[in-house]
Amino acid sequence: MARVNVGMIGYNFMGKAHSNAWKQAPLFFDPPFEPVLKVVCGRHAEPLAAFAERWGWAETETDWRKVVERADVDIIDIAVPTHLHREIAVAAARAGKHIFCEKPFALNVAQAREMCEAAEAAGVRHYVNHNYRRCPAVTLAKQMIDDGRIGTIFHWRGAYLQSWIVDPDFPLTWQLSRETAGAGPHYDLNSHSVDLARFLVGEIKSVSAMTAHFVTERPLPPETGQTAFGAARAGTRKAPVTVDDAAFMLVEFANGALGSFEASRFALGRKNYNCFEIYGDKGSLAFDLERMNELMYFSADDPGCAQGFRTILATEPTHPYLQGWWPPGHIIGYEHAFVHAVVDFLQAVAGQAAIQPDFRDGLRCMQVLEAGLKSAENGRRITLNGTE
Amino acid sequence: MARVNVGMIGYNFMGKAHSNAWKQAPLFFDPPFEPVLKVVCGRHAEPLAAFAERWGWAETETDWRKVVERADVDIIDIAVPTHLHREIAVAAARAGKHIFCEKPFALNVAQAREMCEAAEAAGVRHYVNHNYRRCPAVTLAKQMIDDGRIGTIFHWRGAYLQSWIVDPDFPLTWQLSRETAGAGPHYDLNSHSVDLARFLVGEIKSVSAMTAHFVTERPLPPETGQTAFGAARAGTRKAPVTVDDAAFMLVEFANGALGSFEASRFALGRKNYNCFEIYGDKGSLAFDLERMNELMYFSADDPGCAQGFRTILATEPTHPYLQGWWPPGHIIGYEHAFVHAVVDFLQAVAGQAAIQPDFRDGLRCMQVLEAGLKSAENGRRITLNGTE
Amino acid sequence: MARVNVGMIGYNFMGKAHSNAWKQAPLFFDPPFEPVLKVVCGRHAEPLAAFAERWGWAETETDWRKVVERADVDIIDIAVPTHLHREIAVAAARAGKHIFCEKPFALNVAQAREMCEAAEAAGVRHYVNHNYRRCPAVTLAKQMIDDGRIGTIFHWRGAYLQSWIVDPDFPLTWQLSRETAGAGPHYDLNSHSVDLARFLVGEIKSVSAMTAHFVTERPLPPETGQTAFGAARAGTRKAPVTVDDAAFMLVEFANGALGSFEASRFALGRKNYNCFEIYGDKGSLAFDLERMNELMYFSADDPGCAQGFRTILATEPTHPYLQGWWPPGHIIGYEHAFVHAVVDFLQAVAGQAAIQPDFRDGLRCMQVLEAGLKSAENGRRITLNGTE
Amino acid sequence: MARVNVGMIGYNFMGKAHSNAWKQAPLFFDPPFEPVLKVVCGRHAEPLAAFAERWGWAETETDWRKVVERADVDIIDIAVPTHLHREIAVAAARAGKHIFCEKPFALNVAQAREMCEAAEAAGVRHYVNHNYRRCPAVTLAKQMIDDGRIGTIFHWRGAYLQSWIVDPDFPLTWQLSRETAGAGPHYDLNSHSVDLARFLVGEIKSVSAMTAHFVTERPLPPETGQTAFGAARAGTRKAPVTVDDAAFMLVEFANGALGSFEASRFALGRKNYNCFEIYGDKGSLAFDLERMNELMYFSADDPGCAQGFRTILATEPTHPYLQGWWPPGHIIGYEHAFVHAVVDFLQAVAGQAAIQPDFRDGLRCMQVLEAGLKSAENGRRITLNGTE
Repeated sequence: MARVNVGMIGYNFMGKAHSNAWKQAPLFFDPPFEPVLKVVCGRHAEPLAAFAERWGWAETETDWRKVVERADVDIIDIAVPTHLHREIAVAAARAGKHIFCEKPFALNVAQAREMCEAAEAAGVRHYVNHNYRRCPAVTLAKQMIDDGRIGTIFHWRGAYLQSWIVDPDFPLTWQLSRETAGAGPHYDLNSHSVDLARFLVGEIKSVSAMTAHFVTERPLPPETGQTAFGAARAGTRKAPVTVDDAAFMLVEFANGALGSFEASRFALGRKNYNCFEIYGDKGSLAFDLERMNELMYFSADDPGCAQGFRTILATEPTHPYLQGWWPPGHIIGYEHAFVHAVVDFLQAVAGQAAIQPDFRDGLRCMQVLEAGLKSAENGRRITLNGTE
Repeated sequence: MARVNVGMIGYNFMGKAHSNAWKQAPLFFDPPFEPVLKVVCGRHAEPLAAFAERWGWAETETDWRKVVERADVDIIDIAVPTHLHREIAVAAARAGKHIFCEKPFALNVAQAREMCEAAEAAGVRHYVNHNYRRCPAVTLAKQMIDDGRIGTIFHWRGAYLQSWIVDPDFPLTWQLSRETAGAGPHYDLNSHSVDLARFLVGEIKSVSAMTAHFVTERPLPPETGQTAFGAARAGTRKAPVTVDDAAFMLVEFANGALGSFEASRFALGRKNYNCFEIYGDKGSLAFDLERMNELMYFSADDPGCAQGFRTILATEPTHPYLQGWWPPGHIIGYEHAFVHAVVDFLQAVAGQAAIQPDFRDGLRCMQVLEAGLKSAENGRRITLNGTE
Repeated sequence: MARVNVGMIGYNFMGKAHSNAWKQAPLFFDPPFEPVLKVVCGRHAEPLAAFAERWGWAETETDWRKVVERADVDIIDIAVPTHLHREIAVAAARAGKHIFCEKPFALNVAQAREMCEAAEAAGVRHYVNHNYRRCPAVTLAKQMIDDGRIGTIFHWRGAYLQSWIVDPDFPLTWQLSRETAGAGPHYDLNSHSVDLARFLVGEIKSVSAMTAHFVTERPLPPETGQTAFGAARAGTRKAPVTVDDAAFMLVEFANGALGSFEASRFALGRKNYNCFEIYGDKGSLAFDLERMNELMYFSADDPGCAQGFRTILATEPTHPYLQGWWPPGHIIGYEHAFVHAVVDFLQAVAGQAAIQPDFRDGLRCMQVLEAGLKSAENGRRITLNGTE
Repeated sequence: MARVNVGMIGYNFMGKAHSNAWKQAPLFFDPPFEPVLKVVCGRHAEPLAAFAERWGWAETETDWRKVVERADVDIIDIAVPTHLHREIAVAAARAGKHIFCEKPFALNVAQAREMCEAAEAAGVRHYVNHNYRRCPAVTLAKQMIDDGRIGTIFHWRGAYLQSWIVDPDFPLTWQLSRETAGAGPHYDLNSHSVDLARFLVGEIKSVSAMTAHFVTERPLPPETGQTAFGAARAGTRKAPVTVDDAAFMLVEFANGALGSFEASRFALGRKNYNCFEIYGDKGSLAFDLERMNELMYFSADDPGCAQGFRTILATEPTHPYLQGWWPPGHIIGYEHAFVHAVVDFLQAVAGQAAIQPDFRDGLRCMQVLEAGLKSAENGRRITLNGTE
């Protein structure tokens, strides 16, 4: 099989998920290329070396610019915090590399536009890893909507709820600082929801939002090796939390649908509760990531006395991506959607198909999110400029 | 047992539910009075007579003023459409009658204030029938919150979704006209949700809202006997729908919690899906009226490895109101909450206890709703005047 | 409306449920007769009088024979413990009364046969109150099976689990003594399940069973007023428990289906968990009494990628019995099935329709249960004599 | 890291799942050895070579005896149909190889005993791959039972339902022939359930069973490459189905608990519905493989008014095996339990810990299953000889 060389920047939580995806893709699927784990890049040589050894990365590098400039690297995989995306992505595009970029896409619209324009100008493949589009149940939802099964859409109800910072002593990790993360759950979580809403319902026309700030300062974290979800020990010094703790948003879609987005890290009992409901004039769909193999579907075409939401266990060979995995009823997990993304990305690289969400989608998503921040601040409904 | 005489205005859907409640209350509970079904009032003598005969109302009357003025009537039960509430309630209050009033409370804040002031000035008992406060699972939620089980509240997520007018040929019943209903689901459904949110979380400080209008004109209904949920045959003449089809609202609570309200009559698969989630720093609660005997509860005090939302089947003798009904696991239905309301109202009349929501609650609820309408119109966040 | 006079023997838990049903039937439905609560019979005059006053029974009587012999009584409602059924039912039949009889039907097959033959010989209407046939979701299941929606049936999986005697100090009520109850959950709970299985799947051909006895002696209860589910205070004297605590049973149906029945009073977390699953070659159905308004339905006719169990909320006007109650999504409760039974029984009395389960069904059910007891004792599969 | 060489016999569905597990184990966990995919064995050289190439097996072999005899192979992984287990396992044991053996363990008790004795005599590590013990939610259930959280156990209710052969034209694969599979779902599915019941509740003392045979002959499958779950095209020749289509079993456990097992391949809507409920005197547990990340738990120690089954999402770092995977709420899938088995097996090989279920467990499980077959045939309850 032909090979493509991958250079990955970053090696924490997302580095692990991406490494696994590059390795699993050619085992369970038949992508046009075999991805070679060529070089992984991070700031701290020691843990980086251990990571590379475990996951089979051939080389390590501590300067991301060197990775981007290597002639033998075909794909740049950006798996670092948000504030580092722009510079790496633009450089990678200019170097002619295909780009597989983590989300949230950028700190703001200006960055997003620069990244999008650079990638489009370079003619490379570019992808923003809103991985949940490729949960089979979500991809199935898209197919069903495209097939007209739920008809004209009236409503999107999205929520993404977590609870990992309810404890006021949870430290101030990079996700809790505006400099590094841009915003709180409004970027981290609503970015996923807005991407799914654009995927499944369409473009967003106007936005009203409110944010909440429950814990205003937190202990500083220990210096290194900090990951978002670990049980970090609290330090003694505190610093201000500069992002939102929760962000709720109402939207009007271009097609007239009325929608809601509710993101929070203060929802006890919800771990990774990324859920949506979509209501149309022929039926409805609902999804919850904590039961990611299931899609709820109501059809107004069912016989009157036998209507009801059905739970589709999206593990049949006829369901998206399932032919690669196991027999019906044998569920898949979180990391599998990354494998699907890698498979589709490799096909895009081979020119077999476009891949979305691309950087243009990343830009549009960021426009919605930035409008939400502005609305939360000034209390006004923001109409989006639809010309991008 | 001492008796009180009830005069009920209205005899459609709510008239049936109220009649049943007045009858069942002394069978399953021990209220201080036996309510006597003295007189029922409606405009059409023939169906009114049939209704009275079936339900055991001693007399009928077609002029509500005569009912209000009768010396032998102690309680006025207002079970008519919204636009008729103010006049009847004010007259009843002035006549010194205790008032059991259906919701939505009034067409606007001005009406609500007049009703509230009249009732308070008269010194009578006054109650707005937001019946869902008295579903045992909801009353239990209130007890658990008051006991501190979920701690400080961060979020309210409420939705009330139905689907009875998705068909564009569903006729223009009174609920779809601003003159008679004041607003659409924003009043009909959000009024329940706002009442529950005020009951469980507290007062609301500011509001941002959006509404949707999916079907702009509808066939006129046949002249009489039309009820909201019946399979009405469409007429040939059409007229404009003058209320919202859906109303979504974000709020900030006085205690800092961030909340959402989502009401729609265009959510296929949802019949009477009045649900809420409440998240605090010690636990969470969730409720869905379609499974009204159940309360979901997450406790952060549970052992770490054994935490999870539990489904409390609120049918134990220790649960609110259940001592009147059946053994554990034998669920109750929709109309039972009306019986609970009647029992509590009779206790209030006997001076044994206050009853809420009263007209002051009705007024506050209406202030939130009216602010929502205004926000939806002008696109701005509305701050409520907290002085009422 | 024409009237029929009811004489009810018994006034505890079932007396309350039956009284309510006789009263509610003509309010929510249009039965051919108005049932008159003529006379209620019990052993203890004082609580009986209070009961009669509350529920509106015109007269009381402490000798059931006098009730049965009254010329002005049309219907005998038997709401007493199992060991008293035979004598009352046979006398009532011989006196030409229609009989509405609680379950479990009888202590054994011999009693059941005598009751059945007496009622059939008398030409009266006879009914055994397996009320769960008339939960709308269950009646709907029957309609769907009769319509061929699930095809040829392969499996019945029934369970009826409760937990009210897990505490070894729960007293020895009449339900725990073979003399009064005949058997434990095997009669009390499996009788319901066997009735439903016969209703929905068909006759049973052979039986293998096992029983368990977890608590072998219990404190004697206080003398009077004891009900099954009350929090009875334990006395100091103990006596042997002479019935099963759990009874599991495998069966072969006449049509070749393989089935299971699992009844227990030792299943913590289950209150009144009467559930079944039915699997056919075209679809499947599932029901759980704790969510009695819902029927689960899987259809193999659904499009391949969109198959799944759907949750039918059986509250539509097109669903059985629902036209009498509330709009869609407004659920009903436990006691409503008794109302349905009374309505159908009154129609049977008026000669408008047969009613089932009748005493012949009661006999057949008892044959299955008695075979189960025998199998549990001798360890052999018992083939039923199909000639009854 | 030290290495161990694995020789795997078989390369179909289980070969894929095992290959993945050997590869993933050292990536997500820190086993004492790195497993080397040394040689894979199958009958058909061509598909075998393709399989080896994809999964990274260094060599291929078509004669399993040669694999077993290789000095450079440390572990024999048996991933072939049941009828081939005995010969390979006994040879592997005699050659001093550690054995990782698929289930069902053997065709009958005699084979199982021979395998068990050979492995024990050889002093090698031996493991039967009832992988579901190592679903985190199941392992958690075991921990909770061992911690006394549900107290003394009264009941086991197990079911394992699938639907892949409801179509009478589904071909006669090896799973449907007594010669190759020993029995139908009674071995394939009940073996898993019996293993879980022995793991969680204890030894089984007596057994009553019934089986069903719904489709008595089926088309012969195409010659090669047939897998159980594929949509095989039916041939024209038919042959008898010689195994059960469903097998229901009641048991008494040594500790007095009463249990049930219900296995079927004729349960439409159930894909891989391996579920159990366990009821004790302090609480209850329930599990369903189709939602394998969840464990239901009821605790009688919860406050009376707040009791209910809670849904534990077993994805916390404190849950078994989860420290190797993802943050809370990020679920794992079917194949992950195989990874856990490999990790534990490698630890057993390193002498760090015993591993179960071992061949002794396989033998005991087979005794229960064989007794079930006998009981189904002769209609009698079979008491197990507890001396093995």
